[in-house]
Amino acid sequence: MESSGMSHNNFSNKTSKTPEYTAPAVTVAANVLRYLSGHRVGPRSLADISDAIGANRSTCYRVLHTLRANALVSYNPSTKQYSVGPYLIVLGERAKESTELYTVIADRLGDIVESTKLTAVLAQRVNNDEFIYLSKNEPHEHPHISVMVGQSFPLTAGSHGKCFLAWMEPKEVRKVLRRIGLPRYTERSITDPDQYLAELNKVREVGYAVSIEEHFPGIFGIAVPILDPKAHAEYVITSIGMANLVTPSIIQSTVSAMTRVANQIIAQVYGPINVKS
Amino acid sequence: MESSGMSHNNFSNKTSKTPEYTAPAVTVAANVLRYLSGHRVGPRSLADISDAIGANRSTCYRVLHTLRANALVSYNPSTKQYSVGPYLIVLGERAKESTELYTVIADRLGDIVESTKLTAVLAQRVNNDEFIYLSKNEPHEHPHISVMVGQSFPLTAGSHGKCFLAWMEPKEVRKVLRRIGLPRYTERSITDPDQYLAELNKVREVGYAVSIEEHFPGIFGIAVPILDPKAHAEYVITSIGMANLVTPSIIQSTVSAMTRVANQIIAQVYGPINVKS
Repeated sequence: MESSGMSHNNFSNKTSKTPEYTAPAVTVAANVLRYLSGHRVGPRSLADISDAIGANRSTCYRVLHTLRANALVSYNPSTKQYSVGPYLIVLGERAKESTELYTVIADRLGDIVESTKLTAVLAQRVNNDEFIYLSKNEPHEHPHISVMVGQSFPLTAGSHGKCFLAWMEPKEVRKVLRRIGLPRYTERSITDPDQYLAELNKVREVGYAVSIEEHFPGIFGIAVPILDPKAHAEYVITSIGMANLVTPSIIQSTVSAMTRVANQIIAQVYGPINVKS
Repeated sequence: MESSGMSHNNFSNKTSKTPEYTAPAVTVAANVLRYLSGHRVGPRSLADISDAIGANRSTCYRVLHTLRANALVSYNPSTKQYSVGPYLIVLGERAKESTELYTVIADRLGDIVESTKLTAVLAQRVNNDEFIYLSKNEPHEHPHISVMVGQSFPLTAGSHGKCFLAWMEPKEVRKVLRRIGLPRYTERSITDPDQYLAELNKVREVGYAVSIEEHFPGIFGIAVPILDPKAHAEYVITSIGMANLVTPSIIQSTVSAMTRVANQIIAQVYGPINVKS
């Protein structure tokens, strides 16, 4: 299965609402990097890039020139095309190193896949209203659901969303719901705020969230939070599979495999956890 | 051993010479990312960051705000500090994927370390006048030389530099030498252009470059190029060790281990090579 059907917009440009606090050229730079790093995007010309990101040609040229001087993009003078630059590799490695949790969790996704034979995903909240897929591990078995690292989604979407919100302050949950609402993605999406809040209570109680076709038709997700010592979930791990194959016993075995790994991760990063819950 | 003694400036801001082609805010953004990703730099406040990179406070704020909206930096509201953001991990992974050579070479550095017990480094030319350490693999044995991924150096520096220049067009070599010269790093640095050009001829002839304390006191490097089908070296691999331990037989065995791996890499990426060399 391909991820193209699971596409959402990338980060919505929220900064446009508060122009006094933004650096427009940096927004263009971020858009350039996000575009060039797309999975089906190889090296591209200036015209391709400025068209794709909807930026003025000469602004785009100056941004590319500056990114190039910093090795954040590469330029091939014979083809006159730009591509992602080597210094991004360095920055990415540093970002990983400085995020111990990321490294620990990403390393353990394979264990979950081994137990569940489902696609395992690590998601992180990246701003007030979105989370992104930071890392994934897919089973060797075919067919399986394939997802795209780097994709962003509204914070309330799917089983991940329920996990992020379930361990948030009620006041913040209300703000998030007010800002992004509960869109109808499928026939099974929960769009009623009261019903959604009741669902969040249940999620917090049982320690995991399930979404069967609530976000994408044909897909189910089971999500478990990686709780920090304050019981907040900046990271959520999810197992994703085909909805027509899900059964109560698959949910139960998936939850138990994921919870085991999540507890090991938490113990490794924050020290032993209380023998409660 | 620590890398702090091996420090060079990061990318010199060449763009400042041609202001009409640059996006100053993007330069600030690149400086912010480079600063925050430094090995001894953790989360930092706005004041720390703007002081460190020498940028105007309000410009810096707008740049940070925009980087944050794009998940390129993270912000902790309780400490009011910024750190490298999760989307850098995604961009780094994409940059790796789009650079097959990088992945293949980085994977094989460990094989070189296993044979040589020396630190192995992958360097890439990133602009006209510099190369950076893209990846490294260090031996378990202590003491050993430790280097820092992400550091940049003048294109002529050390054994890497000789490799980059040896497989360059003579016209381009002259331009590089004119722009950055041959600085005296140590008593053993080659600073005479004719002597350096003679050295480059020798390097091209034997297929590897040696520098014993020419760049850093106490350090030797042996470098081998990863030649593309046009016989250009965008990537160079180097084995680095303590100069007081180097012997002709160590040089010979290191060169033969590195050449074997380099040939395997070239065969894997570009197909079988001619049985000549």
